[in-house]
Amino acid sequence: MKKIGIADTTFARYDMASAAIKELQSQSTGFKIIRYTVPGIKDLPVACKKLFEEQSCDIVMALGMPGSEPIDKQCAHEASTGLIHAQLLCNKHIIEVFVYEDEAETSRDLAWLADRRTREHARNVIDLLFHPENLTKHAGQGLRQGFEDAGPVH
Amino acid sequence: MKKIGIADTTFARYDMASAAIKELQSQSTGFKIIRYTVPGIKDLPVACKKLFEEQSCDIVMALGMPGSEPIDKQCAHEASTGLIHAQLLCNKHIIEVFVYEDEAETSRDLAWLADRRTREHARNVIDLLFHPENLTKHAGQGLRQGFEDAGPVH
Amino acid sequence: MKKIGIADTTFARYDMASAAIKELQSQSTGFKIIRYTVPGIKDLPVACKKLFEEQSCDIVMALGMPGSEPIDKQCAHEASTGLIHAQLLCNKHIIEVFVYEDEAETSRDLAWLADRRTREHARNVIDLLFHPENLTKHAGQGLRQGFEDAGPVH
Amino acid sequence: MKKIGIADTTFARYDMASAAIKELQSQSTGFKIIRYTVPGIKDLPVACKKLFEEQSCDIVMALGMPGSEPIDKQCAHEASTGLIHAQLLCNKHIIEVFVYEDEAETSRDLAWLADRRTREHARNVIDLLFHPENLTKHAGQGLRQGFEDAGPVH
Amino acid sequence: MKKIGIADTTFARYDMASAAIKELQSQSTGFKIIRYTVPGIKDLPVACKKLFEEQSCDIVMALGMPGSEPIDKQCAHEASTGLIHAQLLCNKHIIEVFVYEDEAETSRDLAWLADRRTREHARNVIDLLFHPENLTKHAGQGLRQGFEDAGPVH
Repeated sequence: MKKIGIADTTFARYDMASAAIKELQSQSTGFKIIRYTVPGIKDLPVACKKLFEEQSCDIVMALGMPGSEPIDKQCAHEASTGLIHAQLLCNKHIIEVFVYEDEAETSRDLAWLADRRTREHARNVIDLLFHPENLTKHAGQGLRQGFEDAGPVH
Repeated sequence: MKKIGIADTTFARYDMASAAIKELQSQSTGFKIIRYTVPGIKDLPVACKKLFEEQSCDIVMALGMPGSEPIDKQCAHEASTGLIHAQLLCNKHIIEVFVYEDEAETSRDLAWLADRRTREHARNVIDLLFHPENLTKHAGQGLRQGFEDAGPVH
Repeated sequence: MKKIGIADTTFARYDMASAAIKELQSQSTGFKIIRYTVPGIKDLPVACKKLFEEQSCDIVMALGMPGSEPIDKQCAHEASTGLIHAQLLCNKHIIEVFVYEDEAETSRDLAWLADRRTREHARNVIDLLFHPENLTKHAGQGLRQGFEDAGPVH
Repeated sequence: MKKIGIADTTFARYDMASAAIKELQSQSTGFKIIRYTVPGIKDLPVACKKLFEEQSCDIVMALGMPGSEPIDKQCAHEASTGLIHAQLLCNKHIIEVFVYEDEAETSRDLAWLADRRTREHARNVIDLLFHPENLTKHAGQGLRQGFEDAGPVH
Repeated sequence: MKKIGIADTTFARYDMASAAIKELQSQSTGFKIIRYTVPGIKDLPVACKKLFEEQSCDIVMALGMPGSEPIDKQCAHEASTGLIHAQLLCNKHIIEVFVYEDEAETSRDLAWLADRRTREHARNVIDLLFHPENLTKHAGQGLRQGFEDAGPVH
């Protein structure tokens, strides 16, 4: 049975992991979910690597909500770089779902965005794991997660 | 028989992979193409590494279209850094073809640029794989992919 | 018995390590603390790796206080990148506690912030080591270390 | 017999490799030169690694001419980071010779600068390989490659 | 007998290595010094790794003086990142001593700063190697190398 890891943080202001788990379970069956919560996004790279190597996960979602200060963007950059490094070391995908606090104007919009982007990426995880041909079908279509799709250019 | 990997994304707004495949096939024969589509450019580094290690590709094209926001440039930077890292781990070339949304003013120009840059880099792939002497013949000539060549200085 | 490493610097303007040690000991028992002081934050990544590999630590706190100049921010970025790399090489957590000199207006506030952020992260260390379920209980709650929590959005 | 690798690009607007080869041959004998041309500077790190590992080079010159746009500076940063990484993986020197398009005001000056910087670095390569004591003799002397030396301070 | 490596550059405008060697010898005995000069700061990471792996050094000082242009700061950033990487690969300390040309207003002040910062870091090297407890004694004391100490906050 396939294993999907979910790494999330106490720093985030929305329970993205619960949204991810619900969406994954509504989309498919035949997999086990393993959740691992860490303090902040810079703790995610090693958390994901541990999910691969100690928990035998086949793919991991890395969920985080960076703040809006310049230092927060730098932390997100460091975390993303580490997540890419972890993938190269393990030869497995980590789907990064980051929602920046300044992407939304109200708390309500921020919660909506975090929920929707997480759920749309959860479907990418199902496709990568079980239906990679679905992704190729949508290649070059300008898909976005959270806000509306940009669409293709002609 | 040589294997050429093509890694592309659903985020891109143009089907760069189809352009690459057509150009590769119009230029040469004697190779097999393996395509792998992922959600976004930050998923490309591990996708390329998997194409090398799990699909035995000899060279890979990494195709993507970063958006125009500052965060998109940062994502492109992280992806590029990861692509270079993947090459060093595998000792094989990944030809990165990134087209930035703000390189063109209209959708039509963006589609034109994505198509042309991809095709010109496809010819580089053929040269790297089968005719490396062609590249040395054009060394220092100020070649560009997409827009017109800058040409040499004297 | 578990071992907690504490890596700190002579550059910092507050004895964060003593605060960490006091807080760890007030929270739990059944672990040994190993302290290693280096000159500055860029010396922390290898110090942490040595604590893991030469001292068999299970987790490490990396404590530092970057200055307020642009070059100091760059040093912090390099140090953080190295700390993430060290974690990936060792498959163990390093909890980075950095306090920037320009986060507080007075010396007194800076000392207060360094003390409080260190102590709150010390509790994260105890949770990661002994009670990981506590972190999941607070996932997505907008927790902060030092200043007040941001709280969840709805 | 020692082997010197020369990695250059079709993107560059001056044939830096020919300048390097002429200068190397005018300075010394007893070595073999292996040249490898790639499309752009981001292809240089793996090209250098291949020169070390597949061609047994003892040292490599990485020659490139980044453009003048911000994206070109970012590419140069990514390439440089990769070149340093490649050196650490191989325990051998890569002498990076990058000439930025905006370092000169005219095409003629750019060609002059590319030629001169390449040749001065070619002499560093000879020293690193055959006469390391020459470098120590000039330590702290404010040497520059291309433009005039800055000289020592007292 | 312990071995201390000194990696320096011809780019620097002050003979920092001689200052380092004099200070080391005035502070302690029972070690051997091995010096290795390279052209610029981006050549330092692999030079340090070679000092560890080919010369069996126990610790290395990496001495450099970046210029004052933006590109020089970028080079310093790349060099620092590589130095941290080299340390993680070797599990040994590299004490980076960088003096930026724009840290001083006159040539004389620059020479003074380069000399003093190098010497103060040489004492850190002796402490790391022979008296690590001295560093812990000064933890959190706001020590600086070159300019005056910032001191602790209360």
